[in-house]
Amino acid sequence: MQCVKFYSIKDEIRILGLDDAPFNLYSDKKTMLVGAIFRGGKWLDGILRTEIDIDGTDATEKIVEMVRGSRHKDIRIIMLDGLGFGGFNMVDIEEVFRKTKLPVIVIVRQMPDFKAIKSALKNLKHKNFYLKCIEKAGKPKKIEIKHKKFIYIQSYGIEFSDAEEIVRLSSTRSLIPEPVRVAHLIASGIALGESRGNA
Amino acid sequence: MQCVKFYSIKDEIRILGLDDAPFNLYSDKKTMLVGAIFRGGKWLDGILRTEIDIDGTDATEKIVEMVRGSRHKDIRIIMLDGLGFGGFNMVDIEEVFRKTKLPVIVIVRQMPDFKAIKSALKNLKHKNFYLKCIEKAGKPKKIEIKHKKFIYIQSYGIEFSDAEEIVRLSSTRSLIPEPVRVAHLIASGIALGESRGNA
Repeated sequence: MQCVKFYSIKDEIRILGLDDAPFNLYSDKKTMLVGAIFRGGKWLDGILRTEIDIDGTDATEKIVEMVRGSRHKDIRIIMLDGLGFGGFNMVDIEEVFRKTKLPVIVIVRQMPDFKAIKSALKNLKHKNFYLKCIEKAGKPKKIEIKHKKFIYIQSYGIEFSDAEEIVRLSSTRSLIPEPVRVAHLIASGIALGESRGNA
Repeated sequence: MQCVKFYSIKDEIRILGLDDAPFNLYSDKKTMLVGAIFRGGKWLDGILRTEIDIDGTDATEKIVEMVRGSRHKDIRIIMLDGLGFGGFNMVDIEEVFRKTKLPVIVIVRQMPDFKAIKSALKNLKHKNFYLKCIEKAGKPKKIEIKHKKFIYIQSYGIEFSDAEEIVRLSSTRSLIPEPVRVAHLIASGIALGESRGNA
């Protein structure tokens, strides 16, 4: 795996955090994907929005388009709130890296039960694609954010130690990096009328 | 005018900042109104969303419903990005104060040309209501945010000196208080796919 080299990581490194909006599995075909561009863990610089298919395969492509089409040319890192958006619409993080040249960090709030996930995938149309995405993302690795408080990450295109530093410096408000925490609040708040959760 | 008394103003006073989404005057009948709940000028705590009529009269009522219906019971101040949302859908800030018991601060980026506004109102169905809203909000007053950098505010239910302090403490990133700056970025970003402006 090729890696972007970070000789020094600035406090205000521009990060694009992504999360999807909650949806109704029975009536919705698409859901919203929200991007929050942050300066490190400090300031919101901009908001991006696109739509993705539920249980589809277009999340990867839509993220690439979002980054390429944005006037924010200073984004250095893409952070995902989990590997799948819009249900099982998994992101091929190798492809996102290859097409944007930006390293991808996946924030994993709790260690996933891969056995259960693989079993749930069995009957889905795009199961082979999803399994490949999971494989490419690799095993989630533990990071201590605060004393004895951990989250996990997967990453692509970046050394683990650099990813760890960027996750820690941007987790200013909670255990979750601000770009991802805020993308989550916005996506759920806009879709439901009031945001859910706070991390 | 009755005023809420602030014996001390906390750095993390909860503020609801409101802004509307851009819309197409020819094809849209409604637009989105976004609320960003902030701790002072620091952290985003939650997002609220409702819809209002373009050139209608329901902004006041929708803001009251938004506040009453929220699970965020710690909001102490309502901040508006201008007095009108969805075109000329003006907010009756006295009524918002009366029904929510929360003081209202209107952020006025540039001194409005009241003569031009009154002339534009002439042919609108709800002109008398709009004129009353403008009258109740009073003349915008100047605040120095940074050295020789000014904005204006209108307010209701709060002493000017308290309003001034709250506007200054929450303008951490730019001349515009964070709750309003961020509500603006979200409303425009969600509506257009990418946010416009940064203040």
